[in-house]
Amino acid sequence: MINKVILIPDSFKGTMSSALICDIMEKVIKEYYPHSEILKIPVADGGEGSVDAFLQATGGIKKFAQVKDPYFNDMESFYGVLEDGKTAVIEMASCAGLPLVGDEKDPSKTTTFGVGQLILEAVKSGAEHIIMGLGGSATNDCGAGAAAACGVTFYDENEKSFIPVGGTLKDIRRIDTSTINPILKNISITTMCDINNPLYGTNGAAYIFGPQKGADPAMVVDLDNGLRHISEIVKKDLGIVSEDMPGAGAAGGMGYGMHVFFGSMLQMGIETVLDTVNFDELVKNTDYVFTGEGKIDSQSIRGKVVIGVAKRAKSANVPVIAIVGDIGDGIEPVYDMGVSAIFSINRVAVDFKLAKQRSQNDLRLTMDNLMRFLKGIV
Amino acid sequence: MINKVILIPDSFKGTMSSALICDIMEKVIKEYYPHSEILKIPVADGGEGSVDAFLQATGGIKKFAQVKDPYFNDMESFYGVLEDGKTAVIEMASCAGLPLVGDEKDPSKTTTFGVGQLILEAVKSGAEHIIMGLGGSATNDCGAGAAAACGVTFYDENEKSFIPVGGTLKDIRRIDTSTINPILKNISITTMCDINNPLYGTNGAAYIFGPQKGADPAMVVDLDNGLRHISEIVKKDLGIVSEDMPGAGAAGGMGYGMHVFFGSMLQMGIETVLDTVNFDELVKNTDYVFTGEGKIDSQSIRGKVVIGVAKRAKSANVPVIAIVGDIGDGIEPVYDMGVSAIFSINRVAVDFKLAKQRSQNDLRLTMDNLMRFLKGIV
Repeated sequence: MINKVILIPDSFKGTMSSALICDIMEKVIKEYYPHSEILKIPVADGGEGSVDAFLQATGGIKKFAQVKDPYFNDMESFYGVLEDGKTAVIEMASCAGLPLVGDEKDPSKTTTFGVGQLILEAVKSGAEHIIMGLGGSATNDCGAGAAAACGVTFYDENEKSFIPVGGTLKDIRRIDTSTINPILKNISITTMCDINNPLYGTNGAAYIFGPQKGADPAMVVDLDNGLRHISEIVKKDLGIVSEDMPGAGAAGGMGYGMHVFFGSMLQMGIETVLDTVNFDELVKNTDYVFTGEGKIDSQSIRGKVVIGVAKRAKSANVPVIAIVGDIGDGIEPVYDMGVSAIFSINRVAVDFKLAKQRSQNDLRLTMDNLMRFLKGIV
Repeated sequence: MINKVILIPDSFKGTMSSALICDIMEKVIKEYYPHSEILKIPVADGGEGSVDAFLQATGGIKKFAQVKDPYFNDMESFYGVLEDGKTAVIEMASCAGLPLVGDEKDPSKTTTFGVGQLILEAVKSGAEHIIMGLGGSATNDCGAGAAAACGVTFYDENEKSFIPVGGTLKDIRRIDTSTINPILKNISITTMCDINNPLYGTNGAAYIFGPQKGADPAMVVDLDNGLRHISEIVKKDLGIVSEDMPGAGAAGGMGYGMHVFFGSMLQMGIETVLDTVNFDELVKNTDYVFTGEGKIDSQSIRGKVVIGVAKRAKSANVPVIAIVGDIGDGIEPVYDMGVSAIFSINRVAVDFKLAKQRSQNDLRLTMDNLMRFLKGIV
C-alpha cells in the first residue's frame, strides 16, 4: 500500500520542467493509489521560474514591485512570500535577466540595482529571511548595483559616490558598507547557486559567461579586470577574501557580491529547496520519494538534485526512486548515497532528438509500469 | 528474500542468445542472493542451437548419428536425449540446414531424408516422444524426404517408388503411408513452429522462404506448384486437408509434412519448451520469473516467449518480470496476461546500432538495479 509519496524531481533540461514532471507522476500514481497523499515539490534552481516553483511547493503569494531594469529604466518585477510569511524568494532574472534586454546585450552597462530594490521591498513587507536565486543574468556588475540600491556606497577616485556597472568596476577606489540600509540588519539571505566558478580568471564570470551576455573578447578582458579590481578593493576595505569561493563567479559576480556585501552564504539549489520545504519533516512516514533528472552520471554528484534528495531520505529510511532520462556510466556510488533504484524513461533505442519528442509519454509509461510493479509485489 | 528464481528469456535476436542472457542474469542475482536457487531455461525456437538449449534446460545427452545431408551425402549429425531418457530433440537444421550446402543452394534438389533417419535413430535408442525443431532449412521437399526415410512410399506415374525433392514433388502420383516403419507406432512427435505461413500461395513456403534458399523467381513458381500438387495427392490418398494450417509452410513445407506423414501437431516453440521442462511444476514456490525478448510489442502477442511464460506463471500467482530491448507502443494488454513489470535495458538515448554494442553491459546493469530495488523494498 502507498499512503504518502513525495515527488521532487529536477527538470529534464530542455525537455520537461520539474512542475510538469510532478504533474505526470502524480496523475499516474493517483490511478493506482487514489487515496494516497502526494506532495509535489517542483525543484527551483534559482533561475527563471524559481519563485513560482517555491510558491507551488510551499504555498504563499506573489508580490509585485516597481524597480529598475538592467538599464536603469523602471519596470514591474516580483518576488514571492512563502506560506510562513517571513521568507521571501527573489529570482534575480526577474529584473536583471537576459531576456529583459532583448538584442541590447551589453554586460559592461547592465545593473543588478533592481535586485537590491526587491530585497528592500521584501524586507519592508515583513520578510526576515530571503532566498536569492541566481541565474540567467544580463549583468557582470559583481552585485555592486544591488549593493548600491541597499545603501552600500561606492566611491570613485574623486571620492564621488556612484553606482558601478560591469564597465566601471575598475573605477571603484573605496567601498563603505556602513551606509547599508539598517532594515537589513538581522535579515538572513541564502543565495542559491549550483555552479562552481571563481570570480575572475579563465574560469571566472567574465570568461565563461560574458560571451553569452554579449561581451566580445576585448570586453571579456575588460570585465575580468574589473572583477579583479573590485576584489582588491573589497580585500582592502572590507577585509574579505572570497574571490575563489565556488560560485563567486555566478551571475556576473553576483555570487561574490551577495557574500561580501550581504553576508549571504551560497548554497546548492536543492539544499535550499529541501531546507525551505522542511523536507526532513515531510519525509517522515513517506512510503516513497520519487526524484529524477535529465541525466544521472558519476561526474556531477555534487549539488545534483537526486543525490541531495537521496541523502536526506536515506537518513529517514525512506526508499528513493529516481526516474531519469539517461543513465551515465559508473553511477553505482549513488546507490550507497540513498538511491534505491534508477529507471530510465528510454523504452526504445532511438537518439535524443527522437527520445525528446516521446519524453512525456515515456515518463508516463515508465511510472505506470512501476506502479503496476509496486502494486503487484508490495 | 528471494529463494527461487526461474530465468526463461527468449534471445534478443542478433544481439544476445537466450543462454547468454540467462548467464548474465544469474550472475547478478547471485551477487545479491547467493543462496537462491536459480533455474536457467534458455529458450529454443526450433532452429539451430535448439538441441543444446533443451539439454541445458533439462539435462540429458547429445547423441550422434550417420545420416544423409541435404544432397544425400553421408554426414555426422546429432540429436538430444533429455534427462527422462524418453524424449528426443531433433533440430532439422542439423542435417538439412542452409549452412550445410554452402554456396550450392538449390531447394529444388535438397532433401530432408536425414531428418527422417534421425527420427528412426532416436526411436531405436529408446525415445518415445520426439520434439522436432523446424527452422533454418535448405529444403522445400514438404518433408517427403523425411517421410521416405521412415518408410512412407511415394510413387511416380509409372508406379515406381522414389524419394521426392522440391523439384520432383510434382511427379508424385500416389502416396502409401501403410509402409511406414512400424517402430514409429505409438511414437508421439511435437513439432516446434513459430510461423504462420500456409503451405503454398504467395504467403507460402516457396514464395516467402524460397528466395533465401536459392530459388529464382521461376523456381519459386515451380516449387509452389509442387507443394500444391502434393497437397492434392495427400488429400486424395490420405484424406487430410491441412495446407492452410498455420505453419504448414514452415521449413519448406516440413510443417505440413510432419503433420500429414507423422501425425505431429505443430506447437509454438515456447509452449513446447514450457511443457518439456514441466514449467507448471517448476514455477510453484518460485519468487520471480524473469523472461524477456528483444522487443515486446502489441502486434505479435501470439507465440511470444514473454506472453507464453506469463500466462502460465499467472496461473501459479508468480510475478513475472520482463527484461527487454525495446518496448513498443500499446503493450498494456500484456500486463493483464501476467507480466508484472517490463523493463527496457535502454539506459541512454542512442540508436540501435550503438545500443546493440552496449547490450550485455546494459542488461547486467538493468538487472543490478532491479536486484537493489527488490532487496531494498521486499
